[in-house]
Amino acid sequence: MTTLAEAERLDAEDELAPFRERFVPISDPGVVAYLDGNSLGRPLRATAERLRQLVAEEWGGRLIRSWEERWLALPEAIGDELGRVALGAAPGQTIVADSTSVCLYKVLRAAVALRPGRDEIVTDTANFPTDRFLVESVAAELGLTVRWIEAADVRPEDVAAVTGPRTAAVVLSHVDYRSAAIADLAAITRLVRDRGGLTVWDLCHSVGSIPVALDAAGADFAVGCTYKFLNAGPGAPAFLYVNARHHAEFGQPITGWMGAADTFGMAAEYVPAPGIRRALSGTPPVLGMAGVQEGVALLAEAGIDRVRAKAVALGRWVLSLADEWLAPLGFEVASPRDDDRRGGHVTLRHPDAERLSRVLIDNGVLIDFRRPDGIRVGLSPLTTSFTEVRAALDRIRELAGRPE
Amino acid sequence: MTTLAEAERLDAEDELAPFRERFVPISDPGVVAYLDGNSLGRPLRATAERLRQLVAEEWGGRLIRSWEERWLALPEAIGDELGRVALGAAPGQTIVADSTSVCLYKVLRAAVALRPGRDEIVTDTANFPTDRFLVESVAAELGLTVRWIEAADVRPEDVAAVTGPRTAAVVLSHVDYRSAAIADLAAITRLVRDRGGLTVWDLCHSVGSIPVALDAAGADFAVGCTYKFLNAGPGAPAFLYVNARHHAEFGQPITGWMGAADTFGMAAEYVPAPGIRRALSGTPPVLGMAGVQEGVALLAEAGIDRVRAKAVALGRWVLSLADEWLAPLGFEVASPRDDDRRGGHVTLRHPDAERLSRVLIDNGVLIDFRRPDGIRVGLSPLTTSFTEVRAALDRIRELAGRPE
Repeated sequence: MTTLAEAERLDAEDELAPFRERFVPISDPGVVAYLDGNSLGRPLRATAERLRQLVAEEWGGRLIRSWEERWLALPEAIGDELGRVALGAAPGQTIVADSTSVCLYKVLRAAVALRPGRDEIVTDTANFPTDRFLVESVAAELGLTVRWIEAADVRPEDVAAVTGPRTAAVVLSHVDYRSAAIADLAAITRLVRDRGGLTVWDLCHSVGSIPVALDAAGADFAVGCTYKFLNAGPGAPAFLYVNARHHAEFGQPITGWMGAADTFGMAAEYVPAPGIRRALSGTPPVLGMAGVQEGVALLAEAGIDRVRAKAVALGRWVLSLADEWLAPLGFEVASPRDDDRRGGHVTLRHPDAERLSRVLIDNGVLIDFRRPDGIRVGLSPLTTSFTEVRAALDRIRELAGRPE
Repeated sequence: MTTLAEAERLDAEDELAPFRERFVPISDPGVVAYLDGNSLGRPLRATAERLRQLVAEEWGGRLIRSWEERWLALPEAIGDELGRVALGAAPGQTIVADSTSVCLYKVLRAAVALRPGRDEIVTDTANFPTDRFLVESVAAELGLTVRWIEAADVRPEDVAAVTGPRTAAVVLSHVDYRSAAIADLAAITRLVRDRGGLTVWDLCHSVGSIPVALDAAGADFAVGCTYKFLNAGPGAPAFLYVNARHHAEFGQPITGWMGAADTFGMAAEYVPAPGIRRALSGTPPVLGMAGVQEGVALLAEAGIDRVRAKAVALGRWVLSLADEWLAPLGFEVASPRDDDRRGGHVTLRHPDAERLSRVLIDNGVLIDFRRPDGIRVGLSPLTTSFTEVRAALDRIRELAGRPE
């Protein structure tokens, strides 16, 4: 069942289909399909309008007064809403700030400081570069050792094999950026906690795509970005989560004025703000936060469970099309076939993936390439339709079948 | 000469007066005068238009392709232009990124690492809170000692008194955020360098207001914000400068993928990018950078020397009005009277400044209050007129003269 009629039936039955209208139409008529929402989500109409209003009124009318009237509260307010809608996090534990890299540096330093005497950080060799680089940087500066998990698809038993009384922190991605494999966040968190270590979860490839249950799992720390499935905009600020049980003690080294208890007190000494706010450093990025706020609001309206259900259906649809059309052309599915273990994209491997990716992009099929041989088909349930996916894979079939 | 006719004459002769039209008009009719551009500059019309275009076309049309086509180059491209227009910095040494706090953390860590064996960081007790807090945080984490300069208005001799063979880095603000006193950047830099230490300059209150000559002075590191005199927008990204002579060796601990030599190589090890780019960490904030780019472009058009000349003239105008109208009401000028030592704002002290500030703001005179008793009158040469300043000080005279 890979017919156009089937695609149209799936779209007709899709409860989330009307959400496509909430996005700015793609102004480039050459785009056949946008399947890279897992790298950069599309702009919401509401974000465009909000930016206009923000510049004209909040910034251009209320001027400096907007800081007290609304902007200073945004990192926590948006964080709380994001926590409620997407992270399974009660209020007061999530804050919007900085980039994912900076947030990860902060929480990793915070985590390690909470486990003095333990001298190992665990991560995996297939983790996203920023995560691996930061683990190595923090380990080097503090004299700790990195314990590497070699598996590309990290299972609880892989974590069990390298954690113990020396483990300070375990840094893992919830969804693998290449294969889309979902790690068992609850089981791994429990396992690490039982051994006295702390978990630092990178949610970049899961937030806004699959439900996350940080509080229920008892996760310690988490970070993630907002410009993928949350559609917040290029380089929009990231978020970090610190479980409330650490709030009395945790600290982070970038002690800017926004993390101080009395920001405008200009005090002689840094006294950290109570709770999550001490994770802030500099002045919050207001334009970027507007995109996060709108993205989270739209997700709240759609509901993360409906988003997840559609992501699963879109994933299955890609698998059906790939099996029928692309397998004969040398493509191989690199993502889990089990729906419960597959995140919001499907990766197809092909020996000629790098060249093919360029040809596809030149022909309006916007996927992305990940070394060495992966073509990622990103499925963004609020914007991606079944017919769009079919049109894209049809083009892949056509272009991959052509002589070079 | 404090007459309205004199204000009008000054405005008529002001070469920069036409630049007021380049800004979004203040949409709140209750605003009598906006004298807080030193905290938050006003929005440019070009920024509003650029954001519209960015969302609709760069983000909504080119989608992910905009990263390679334009966005990835922006941190350096805008940094170079900022360096040329405002910092006296040759290309390749300035980059737009993060917040001032995060940038300061990075360059301070970088500076200290370049002076192993030296165990002191120097700063002053009147420095901006973020600067003091970060100096203390970095000192604590690395086991260094902070040497405090007690003077509120730091002179070369004050620096000389606390620097020596143990000095790793000296962290000072170019313009004091309370008094607007200008530090002698060239003399202090030379002095510190002669003693083998490194300078870290905070340019938040000077960039875009007074010419800075980092290369000529031989400064080592600098950071600054863009949302004040550069009018880049609330929480717009900051910048950092690393003198080229340190590029071969400097490092910073937040080793995110954007600072790696091959960002999309997904390499096993972090290899820092050559030059200033290794100062980056996470994904650059595109919406915020658009405001920086427009702000820098407008400054280039106006010219920093004309901006400085008008800032001086506006400062003198405030002093004349304050001497004639406000001194009798118990106000005292807390900023240097010497034009060469006064930055882009004038601070007036008054025992009742906190209450008065609230009354002023409620009456549409937007100044800001800085503890314990300072009212800052911010002078933003591209938007502030002489009649606006006169109207504001007239209101201050009237409101301060009223019984409580």
